Amino acid sequence: MSEWSWSKTEKKIARKAFDTAYLREIKQIEEEVKKRVESFKEKNDVWDLHDYLTERRRDIDRKYDYRYSQLIWVFARLMIDGYLKEEDLEGLSEHKLLAIREFIKLARSNR
Amino acid sequence: MSEWSWSKTEKKIARKAFDTAYLREIKQIEEEVKKRVESFKEKNDVWDLHDYLTERRRDIDRKYDYRYSQLIWVFARLMIDGYLKEEDLEGLSEHKLLAIREFIKLARSNR
Repeated sequence: MSEWSWSKTEKKIARKAFDTAYLREIKQIEEEVKKRVESFKEKNDVWDLHDYLTERRRDIDRKYDYRYSQLIWVFARLMIDGYLKEEDLEGLSEHKLLAIREFIKLARSNR
Repeated sequence: MSEWSWSKTEKKIARKAFDTAYLREIKQIEEEVKKRVESFKEKNDVWDLHDYLTERRRDIDRKYDYRYSQLIWVFARLMIDGYLKEEDLEGLSEHKLLAIREFIKLARSNR
């Protein structure tokens, strides 16, 4: 078994972390939508809301890619964006966690 | 002056009716958005809201065409959809009001 293959336990952890992050992000979008709706004022506000949702949806469709070949990077990105903490990934191999941390470092250094 | 040209007074009435209908429709969309937001439940609700706004925006972009050559039909459509009443168009020539009524009849008979 290669260091990059996912054990049954790891797959379960990954799926849960992935879904958790997704729900957290949706929750955050819902909160933003609520805030915007409560302060509807100008006639264009409803279209600004539409633009906001279009952008978030595009971003999310791109980001949530559940292929095992992509997951390390996806998790790194979700940690950077604040939708996952390392404890959500507890139980993944040390090798994978290390790779995620390296990805995060790399992404942060490129900012 | 042709029967189809718009006097200064008619242009003023038309502009006001057009803007009034637009605001009424936006108001209605805002109400629908509020209703949906209040009952957010499933994780897809936020994308259903996005789909709804995409559809309404496309519809509105198509419908609100302020060219004098189009206005008779636009007003007929807005009356059919319930965003204008004939009193909003009071002051337009009898010729134009008649044309609007005919358009409405035609549209209704084609349903």
